[in-house]
Amino acid sequence: MGLVVQKYGGSSVADAEGIKRVAKRIVEAKKNGHQVVVVVSAMGDTTDELIDLAEQVSPMPAGREFDMLLTAGERISMALLAMAIKNLGHEAQSFTGSQAGVITDSVHNKARIIDVTPGRIRTALDEGNIAIVAGFQGVSQDKKDITTLGRGGSDTTAVALAAALDAEVCEIYTDVDGVFTADPRVVKKAKKIDWISFEDMLELAASGSKVLLHRCVEYARRYNIPIHVRSSFSGLRGTWVSSEPIEQGDQKVEQAIISGVAHDTSEAKITVVGVPDKPGEAATIFRTISDAEINIDMIVQNVSAASTGLTDISFTLPKTEGRKAIDALEKNKAGIGFDSLRYDDQIGKISLVGAGMKTNPGVTASFFEALSDAGVNIELISTSEIRISVVTRADDVAEAVRAVHSAFGLDSDSDEAVVYGGTGR
Amino acid sequence: MGLVVQKYGGSSVADAEGIKRVAKRIVEAKKNGHQVVVVVSAMGDTTDELIDLAEQVSPMPAGREFDMLLTAGERISMALLAMAIKNLGHEAQSFTGSQAGVITDSVHNKARIIDVTPGRIRTALDEGNIAIVAGFQGVSQDKKDITTLGRGGSDTTAVALAAALDAEVCEIYTDVDGVFTADPRVVKKAKKIDWISFEDMLELAASGSKVLLHRCVEYARRYNIPIHVRSSFSGLRGTWVSSEPIEQGDQKVEQAIISGVAHDTSEAKITVVGVPDKPGEAATIFRTISDAEINIDMIVQNVSAASTGLTDISFTLPKTEGRKAIDALEKNKAGIGFDSLRYDDQIGKISLVGAGMKTNPGVTASFFEALSDAGVNIELISTSEIRISVVTRADDVAEAVRAVHSAFGLDSDSDEAVVYGGTGR
Repeated sequence: MGLVVQKYGGSSVADAEGIKRVAKRIVEAKKNGHQVVVVVSAMGDTTDELIDLAEQVSPMPAGREFDMLLTAGERISMALLAMAIKNLGHEAQSFTGSQAGVITDSVHNKARIIDVTPGRIRTALDEGNIAIVAGFQGVSQDKKDITTLGRGGSDTTAVALAAALDAEVCEIYTDVDGVFTADPRVVKKAKKIDWISFEDMLELAASGSKVLLHRCVEYARRYNIPIHVRSSFSGLRGTWVSSEPIEQGDQKVEQAIISGVAHDTSEAKITVVGVPDKPGEAATIFRTISDAEINIDMIVQNVSAASTGLTDISFTLPKTEGRKAIDALEKNKAGIGFDSLRYDDQIGKISLVGAGMKTNPGVTASFFEALSDAGVNIELISTSEIRISVVTRADDVAEAVRAVHSAFGLDSDSDEAVVYGGTGR
Repeated sequence: MGLVVQKYGGSSVADAEGIKRVAKRIVEAKKNGHQVVVVVSAMGDTTDELIDLAEQVSPMPAGREFDMLLTAGERISMALLAMAIKNLGHEAQSFTGSQAGVITDSVHNKARIIDVTPGRIRTALDEGNIAIVAGFQGVSQDKKDITTLGRGGSDTTAVALAAALDAEVCEIYTDVDGVFTADPRVVKKAKKIDWISFEDMLELAASGSKVLLHRCVEYARRYNIPIHVRSSFSGLRGTWVSSEPIEQGDQKVEQAIISGVAHDTSEAKITVVGVPDKPGEAATIFRTISDAEINIDMIVQNVSAASTGLTDISFTLPKTEGRKAIDALEKNKAGIGFDSLRYDDQIGKISLVGAGMKTNPGVTASFFEALSDAGVNIELISTSEIRISVVTRADDVAEAVRAVHSAFGLDSDSDEAVVYGGTGR
């Protein structure tokens, strides 16, 4: 029996009862002979409450102090969790990100892990302890200041620790039973995926699936750490994310042609209208956007109208970055040379993901047929080797996801998906 | 202009408004040309809420994890305070006890400061920052674990930092205007003391005055750091605690004969009845108590009755230790040889404190006369060079304090004492 890293989100430890439930689950793993390292998020709404306090004292809280504030959340949950475990008669010690050796760069509020030196965790494990580590936080290499990792940071902490400690598996406990073929809140007949490759999971995450974030999966792939996504409420076997299919019973789980359907309604579309159709124009536009530190997603350039020599370029980006992008483009209007900008935040994106589609030429056609049959109009298209994405009206997204899910035979025989609580960080 | 350490208790930073008010006061000190180090407690009821959570997950929370939990409180208040200061256009950085170099022993929940290495605070000050430090917490020298200093710990943090940084003064901001000649909640005509010596303040603290705790005053006396106790609400000049009288206007404040009247109703009295009146008996009793790690206060041995050769020994101790003391004595009943134990938690203690009483022989007599005139019966008496204490019925305490306060001419002409809020830690 080897070392297991378990990560529990905020919804799993939302109150004292939740903490005691999670403590029992951790002790079970220990009793089964594992060395156990637990990464925990802040309790339920703690983070939101702290953000609210910050906004009351300062309209624009500074990065360093904001991180100092937010990290109080995990400090509370990890100490309580360690107490609850000790109360069950097992030894546990809690560690801050800094104490656990999570070293990051100095970009407050969205720091990146650059090294993990888990000496104190190793010692705690060797002395027979269960080690509880604060997720979402680290310490900056140069200034020794407390940093936070941004959204989904606790998952990344867990995977990074699993890699540094050479764990057998990183278990991500959440409020659903695993990764589903579509969002269970939209598709009642969504099926739990038993196994999915890192690559397909990366595409799902990039396409709007919120169970695991892109950065965490990327980290797990780089260090080849199998992830087991499962529910802290049901205790059922969940979804394995790994490079090779897992064994289930006496046979390997087969690679599915299609892993799932993801959707995303958090993006907006900007269309730059009347751009001269000449070399370097697109480069100028996207240099402007990139200089403003905005990440964009899909890009489509229309065929230029021969009569005018002008074309339109559309791209999608997070709604939260919309204002900044418009401002940056307007400021550089003369340099770029365009007529006008159109901003549309009533869009949605539907993506079909699966490594099998590379060798199944009919997939694209079936995808478009399904959308057409459902009466959904397509505004943008983008494809990769293992993904097709389309942009539609936001109102059409739910219907489109259900239509595609059904067309590719992903529907389960029963409504099996259960959502147990809110979502953690 | 030199360096000032300011300490704000939990009631001063109970909510966002309080934090903003305190931030303004800090910025004023900075504008006046001081280097400013601020020690802050947890907001209002935060600590109680965390203790409540701990009790929900574990009936007996372990020391290390309990400290990890409680220190989240100051982390929140210090980060918010730094944000509020930055919002006023001044630079501020917050530091945990560990980051500020507060090194302690390993006794969790009541650690003692053994060294202060404020390198990061110095650097922050040199760079023009206001430094905000979490009170009440440190890091253990041997294990590098987070510790807390116990009740009144933030005051001790402030004085220890003031000593290590060679500060001009340590300002303790609280919810009253200073140290009073008696508890203003009991004596409406209590007067604010302008200056008091370390020695008298130590006796007041030992006798039940709660404005400053004994340990903090002791620390300040050892390093000769003047303390200025004042209100964060009124901003008035408060009470100076120092070795030499301060200047006020163009004259020195004179040493008062009597500094004040303190009272304490947190103690109980144990009487060991029927003890053989022979050498070594008292030693056996108090060795038993001390082995149980119980601190006692007053001790009185009655004159032995000649007919029996037996005597009674009474002592007072914190009510919270009563059960433990009784158990320890009963367990050793044969070894000590006594008839029975009497436990009485309906007692109160009244103390008159003042260095002037050494050379004023009438003080003791006047004290007893005042009590007698008020009809208060005395059960135990204990004296030091600068203090007389008596034990009475708990019900008589308030009346006794008012009578003594009045008899020694301490009453103010008006009801000047104001209590602004709750009490912090």
